[in-house]
Amino acid sequence: MARTASLSGFPEWLPEERLVELHVLDTLRRVFELHGFASIETRAVETVGQLLRKGEIDKEVYGLSRLQDDEDDKSAKQDPHALALHFDLTVPFARYVVENSGYLAFPFRRYQIQKVWRGERPQEGRAREFTQADIDVVGDGELPFRYDVEIALVIAEALSALPIPDFRLRINNRKLAEGFYRGIGLEDTAGVLRSIDKLEKIGPGKVAELLKTELGATDQQAEAALKLAGIRTEDTSFVAQVRALGVSNELLEEGLSELEQVIAAAVQRAPGKVVADLSIARGLDYYTGTVVETVLVGHEQLGSICSGGRYDALASKGNRKFPGVGLSIGVTRLVSRILSQDLAKASRSVPTVVLVALTNDDSWSAAQDVAAQLRDRGIATEVAAKAEKFGKQIKFADRRGIPFVWFTDDDGNHQVKDIRSGDQTPADPARWTPPSEDLSVQIKTVAAQPV
Amino acid sequence: MARTASLSGFPEWLPEERLVELHVLDTLRRVFELHGFASIETRAVETVGQLLRKGEIDKEVYGLSRLQDDEDDKSAKQDPHALALHFDLTVPFARYVVENSGYLAFPFRRYQIQKVWRGERPQEGRAREFTQADIDVVGDGELPFRYDVEIALVIAEALSALPIPDFRLRINNRKLAEGFYRGIGLEDTAGVLRSIDKLEKIGPGKVAELLKTELGATDQQAEAALKLAGIRTEDTSFVAQVRALGVSNELLEEGLSELEQVIAAAVQRAPGKVVADLSIARGLDYYTGTVVETVLVGHEQLGSICSGGRYDALASKGNRKFPGVGLSIGVTRLVSRILSQDLAKASRSVPTVVLVALTNDDSWSAAQDVAAQLRDRGIATEVAAKAEKFGKQIKFADRRGIPFVWFTDDDGNHQVKDIRSGDQTPADPARWTPPSEDLSVQIKTVAAQPV
Repeated sequence: MARTASLSGFPEWLPEERLVELHVLDTLRRVFELHGFASIETRAVETVGQLLRKGEIDKEVYGLSRLQDDEDDKSAKQDPHALALHFDLTVPFARYVVENSGYLAFPFRRYQIQKVWRGERPQEGRAREFTQADIDVVGDGELPFRYDVEIALVIAEALSALPIPDFRLRINNRKLAEGFYRGIGLEDTAGVLRSIDKLEKIGPGKVAELLKTELGATDQQAEAALKLAGIRTEDTSFVAQVRALGVSNELLEEGLSELEQVIAAAVQRAPGKVVADLSIARGLDYYTGTVVETVLVGHEQLGSICSGGRYDALASKGNRKFPGVGLSIGVTRLVSRILSQDLAKASRSVPTVVLVALTNDDSWSAAQDVAAQLRDRGIATEVAAKAEKFGKQIKFADRRGIPFVWFTDDDGNHQVKDIRSGDQTPADPARWTPPSEDLSVQIKTVAAQPV
Repeated sequence: MARTASLSGFPEWLPEERLVELHVLDTLRRVFELHGFASIETRAVETVGQLLRKGEIDKEVYGLSRLQDDEDDKSAKQDPHALALHFDLTVPFARYVVENSGYLAFPFRRYQIQKVWRGERPQEGRAREFTQADIDVVGDGELPFRYDVEIALVIAEALSALPIPDFRLRINNRKLAEGFYRGIGLEDTAGVLRSIDKLEKIGPGKVAELLKTELGATDQQAEAALKLAGIRTEDTSFVAQVRALGVSNELLEEGLSELEQVIAAAVQRAPGKVVADLSIARGLDYYTGTVVETVLVGHEQLGSICSGGRYDALASKGNRKFPGVGLSIGVTRLVSRILSQDLAKASRSVPTVVLVALTNDDSWSAAQDVAAQLRDRGIATEVAAKAEKFGKQIKFADRRGIPFVWFTDDDGNHQVKDIRSGDQTPADPARWTPPSEDLSVQIKTVAAQPV
């Protein structure tokens, strides 16, 4: 991994690294589809007006302009119809839902795996081009809370299937937090959330300072808000801990009940993977209920690898509201970590199982016949392009990790050689199959090093 | 298909349409991997300098600028280090090969399936954002000609596996054409190719005019060039037809021999799919041998759905040259046509095979247990979110094309209903499997309408 990207923030993988990424993508797709999520893709571009619709935005957006266009392309900054690259998959999905609402069956569940772009300063875990894998369920008018529970379980199942270290979904609920703040007399709940969001970065002392200086909180209010944020349980005991703080508020009760449902289901169906963490705030984003962040255990400084939550209005069309709940996995962040720490490796660098060697230059067509028979049975096969010495042809296979080389002599007798063991045996191209572990590339997790 | 894209030139698919596209992408990947091609992706952006490196360029490029950047973003047009979206996958692949040449095993065979962007005026078959699927083999210093033959055969196999009408690879060879032009005394071979490239658009009379006025060709020279371009054979008889024109040139002989090898192999291995078509020129592009375009029979006006050829120097690094041969399938062009003409359809709009119904609101957890058992055996399953009347739950499934609804009564007896036939039978969640044609979404080709 001495390679560095030729353009900072735009990672590219070697073929054997791409196989690890493909394995991650295939695994996510399989789990999502097993749970009935349908695939969609949206265009890479949105209008600037659409992207900046929510006003206060902390993402760096790349605007587009045609190089051959003679007009002043500064207009992209002022013109809401100008095009720009999407910075997440939620804003485009909201637009897609509104545009296609007449063609979709609600509640609509979709997964979307695409690249997104942000012009931020690149650093470990933060690229300018990266792949996200999102699942969301969106309703028309209403969306049962049960989907919040389900989404968390699907993500826990998906992450469990990946070649990554142990992880924790840290879940909170905005109603719980906002109801609590109101219950103690702090009405600028967005302001409190923004301060609480800084807890891991600046510590409780400075957060208390912020709450008091910026939001006019009393010592007691700041202390209560920090006590709430300090609650973290692996089961539903957080409910009693919150109640012990003696705050009463209707929204708080609603939030407690919702979070309790999520955690109770997770304790049963994803034991050890989910915690109620009442410090989770999700800063600027416009969530209205469940909020989720996810850490890799032992890699906490990498940041959240999967985040999201519930929006009462993911999208709207006139009076019609489309509530949604969803989570987004940072695929590139995960894959970068897997590769940089050698957490998993591909068993070879190419899909090929068999290289058909050439005995002489005229045997290419016969070799293609052998290859076609093998491919018919799903065995990935290449044919050598030149009748070089067998040693050279074997080396060609060896350099790529191709496990088998096929030889056919002038009398049409076939032999297949496992170049790892050196074993060579007669074989029939119409019947021979490799061991199942050689048939496709395996992604093997590498045992974690003792820290 | 009354829907139109909300942004002209940026097509988006509904979930059932996306399933057709996914089928196309999965099929291409499967065939490419069976032939040993390794997957890579390159970043979406290149530097402007890299994209415009070849000088004369006829693609409209989208430049990037950060909206939050205060600097004058006009610089993107003058600054070769500015970023722009790639307009094909060949230029990025060439850069990738040079950058990673120390890490790749040559000849290196890769497939690459990604979106590309061109700021052109959108029209049928021509989008501003579209997906290409490329295969290339690239060598270090040299690349046996056999890969030209192989690439054509792999593409013919891949296209044959798609739900599309019959197609023809139209293959020519630049050496053949250029050698012929030199043999008749026309030295500006690039100019002749550019004129011949217009044959289908403006006809032979006007091409002859161009050759005479712009390149100073005599009547005889123009006639000979047009005679060559008129040769089109499904077998290797083009060789005799070219020889009958009585032109002698060494490069011509080399090209004849190369094209003969491609066509001879195709006659045997992809009968009826390939023609030698000596009118194929590929205009501005810098091919040096084999050139290919592909038409869908009956949809010729759609343009080429797969093009490419051989470059003596796909890339270079100092004195080191990397020759390559490759073809690029226009996936979006194909999928747009499949969808607009109803050539193929998905059997349902979601991956889900089974909807587990809720008998009452407390049965959600038991229903999740049933779903988990089914998913363990690869059966995509959703659980209803609310215990609505069974009729409503069945309608939920019906609207999405989900074929089976699962019922569990209060005593724990399971029944599964095929909602198409109405048949309902007892079933064990640990053992029941759907008919194999229902297990995953099927893409069915629709019989072509009589024209």
